Amino acid sequence: MDQTATLDRVSHTHVVFEDGMALECGAHLPRLTVAYRTYGRLNADHSNAVLICHALTMDQYVAERHPVTGKDGWWEDVVGPGRPIDTDRFFVICCNVLGGCMGSTGPLTERDEAPGTLWGTDFPPVTVGDMVRAQKRLTEHLGITRLFAVLGGSMGGMQVLQWVALFPDAVFAALPIACAAYHSAQNIAFHEVGRQAIFADPDWQGGRYWADGRKPARGLAVARMCAHITYLSEEALTRKFGRRIQNAPKDPTEAISLFGEMFEVESYLRHQGSTFVDRFDANSYLTLTRAMDYFDLAADYQGDLANAFRGTKTRFLLVSFTSDWLFPTAESRSIARALNRAGANVSFVEIPSDKGHDAFLLDEPDFHRTLAGFLAGCAEHAGLRS
Amino acid sequence: MDQTATLDRVSHTHVVFEDGMALECGAHLPRLTVAYRTYGRLNADHSNAVLICHALTMDQYVAERHPVTGKDGWWEDVVGPGRPIDTDRFFVICCNVLGGCMGSTGPLTERDEAPGTLWGTDFPPVTVGDMVRAQKRLTEHLGITRLFAVLGGSMGGMQVLQWVALFPDAVFAALPIACAAYHSAQNIAFHEVGRQAIFADPDWQGGRYWADGRKPARGLAVARMCAHITYLSEEALTRKFGRRIQNAPKDPTEAISLFGEMFEVESYLRHQGSTFVDRFDANSYLTLTRAMDYFDLAADYQGDLANAFRGTKTRFLLVSFTSDWLFPTAESRSIARALNRAGANVSFVEIPSDKGHDAFLLDEPDFHRTLAGFLAGCAEHAGLRS
Repeated sequence: MDQTATLDRVSHTHVVFEDGMALECGAHLPRLTVAYRTYGRLNADHSNAVLICHALTMDQYVAERHPVTGKDGWWEDVVGPGRPIDTDRFFVICCNVLGGCMGSTGPLTERDEAPGTLWGTDFPPVTVGDMVRAQKRLTEHLGITRLFAVLGGSMGGMQVLQWVALFPDAVFAALPIACAAYHSAQNIAFHEVGRQAIFADPDWQGGRYWADGRKPARGLAVARMCAHITYLSEEALTRKFGRRIQNAPKDPTEAISLFGEMFEVESYLRHQGSTFVDRFDANSYLTLTRAMDYFDLAADYQGDLANAFRGTKTRFLLVSFTSDWLFPTAESRSIARALNRAGANVSFVEIPSDKGHDAFLLDEPDFHRTLAGFLAGCAEHAGLRS
Repeated sequence: MDQTATLDRVSHTHVVFEDGMALECGAHLPRLTVAYRTYGRLNADHSNAVLICHALTMDQYVAERHPVTGKDGWWEDVVGPGRPIDTDRFFVICCNVLGGCMGSTGPLTERDEAPGTLWGTDFPPVTVGDMVRAQKRLTEHLGITRLFAVLGGSMGGMQVLQWVALFPDAVFAALPIACAAYHSAQNIAFHEVGRQAIFADPDWQGGRYWADGRKPARGLAVARMCAHITYLSEEALTRKFGRRIQNAPKDPTEAISLFGEMFEVESYLRHQGSTFVDRFDANSYLTLTRAMDYFDLAADYQGDLANAFRGTKTRFLLVSFTSDWLFPTAESRSIARALNRAGANVSFVEIPSDKGHDAFLLDEPDFHRTLAGFLAGCAEHAGLRS
């Protein structure tokens, strides 16, 4: 499958802001496109909007068939009629992040000043703050001045924290899930391995691979494999694969086997890597991992995270998972402490799970009940008619 | 620096066994070369020999200047006159493992049947058991039928366990350090990412890169970077680098920066990757990671590790480090339990350290005192004159 062509051929619901957008790095995007999907109906007083912020490799196709992969939405269990985020009650919005590759302005976007030329690696660096400002443009366009809730996991959780810091009066409830208020040295290190794997692929061509269509598929696959290990727990890998073996392919460029065998976990990782490159753009991956690495909310507020939330009236639910070693519970606890110092209204739930960081995307009934219960309580406080 | 040429140009002290060696995979090496170094003097009754088994990317240059890198030996703090492994008292041996790239038979070795042709990826798969059998040939050649002690960390610790299992009467004391009796699914997964990074480098050329000298340096560097993260703890990375930044290189094929900056941890990882390729061979890396992945000692003994040690008279010291997440303390504890079930004489020490898996290579005074104390006690029990 030809990746960029496929990503390009798909059309996405979107809105174009012709005045563009100023970025934190000082660059000005001459035009801003935000691709998005909505589920449910906005009520008369526009008070039932829920914004979902997606993670690094996810997108706006939350609760419907994905137009590139053909697979179910990434949060079908959570978003829908009667689900924890009930689309019979809430108007749910999710947009592709700025810098992404599913229709919002990013490295795959054609440059206005040079038709036929894509941004590629010349796309300006974006921050989590830039992503959130683009989302704010979209929600205003949709007629929403105050969101009932903003929620998301991982990079999505970073956006949630940034939303409240930037727009304290625009968020009634905030749910940062399986995230941290900054990227740790170890997190940066794993991202850097992925980036170097992309740079090492000669098909990356200094980022101009879109010109001849030879894409850095092998480098991007290695990046995905490395990252994927960090999304799972050791327990989950052991439970799913242990040391089970299967026959190895004969091709020595694909595998080095012993006794003609390979481990199932190897086959699984290769599959994760090879399917990823059909649905994701390498330059977007570089752009978004960089944005995550630079995220350090306290640094923008005199080094004290509490300053980001002083006087906030937003109600918070923090969720972490016991076996998440990418964003361990200690990081959520540290956010909870900062919120307490700021006098915020905060609940914090650590969900027992052996599924690692990816638990927020998987079938975790305790997590889903927690989401539903918190949103119901907030709706009552907000006087939202059910 | 031209890597293979440099590795090739260096001559190593070695012994050649012209009758070769049968491998577990069924292949027969027509000739076996074992490159080794010794420190101290063998006593009159040949009872003071200590064999050090090295880790994946280490070699026989334990306590002297390395002939390729020019750096100190990897265990200078531990091995030497008056050091925990006292060369005034013990005759210390370390050999390059079978499949390695520092003079012992491995992928860099010329094939007898085809002069000018190296083994490369046609080198037969080797196991930890094969490594140990090659070491046994060396120690017999040196006139030693019984080793006073066998010790090593990581892959070296696997060899220690295998030594006692294969040659129960040939080891008075065994010190498996920071290791496990099998490789976990997560360990295999990280190795597989490294292997795929090598396979993805077009300069790997299906393993025949030795023919034209274009070596898969970028792929091997990515493999090393990924592995290196697993050798450190999150605490160590945070303590050493945190989120400190430095100026980024201007070359966009090397870095994607934000505001012209990059993180120090990225620069450190790149340095780790780029220096590694000057001293290590990619095909050796493939061979040795595969051997580690296949290590599962209990599987060779009806699934019960205790069976590997029934009736052993060897005295064991197991050492783990609190922040080691590659071979966590739980793995050492599980070995200790198996040894207890086998009725073995076993001590187990968990060293508090925030340095991660690499702690066994670093300045850890508690660890060094533990080593020295255990060896002194064993020497007394063995009636070894000091």
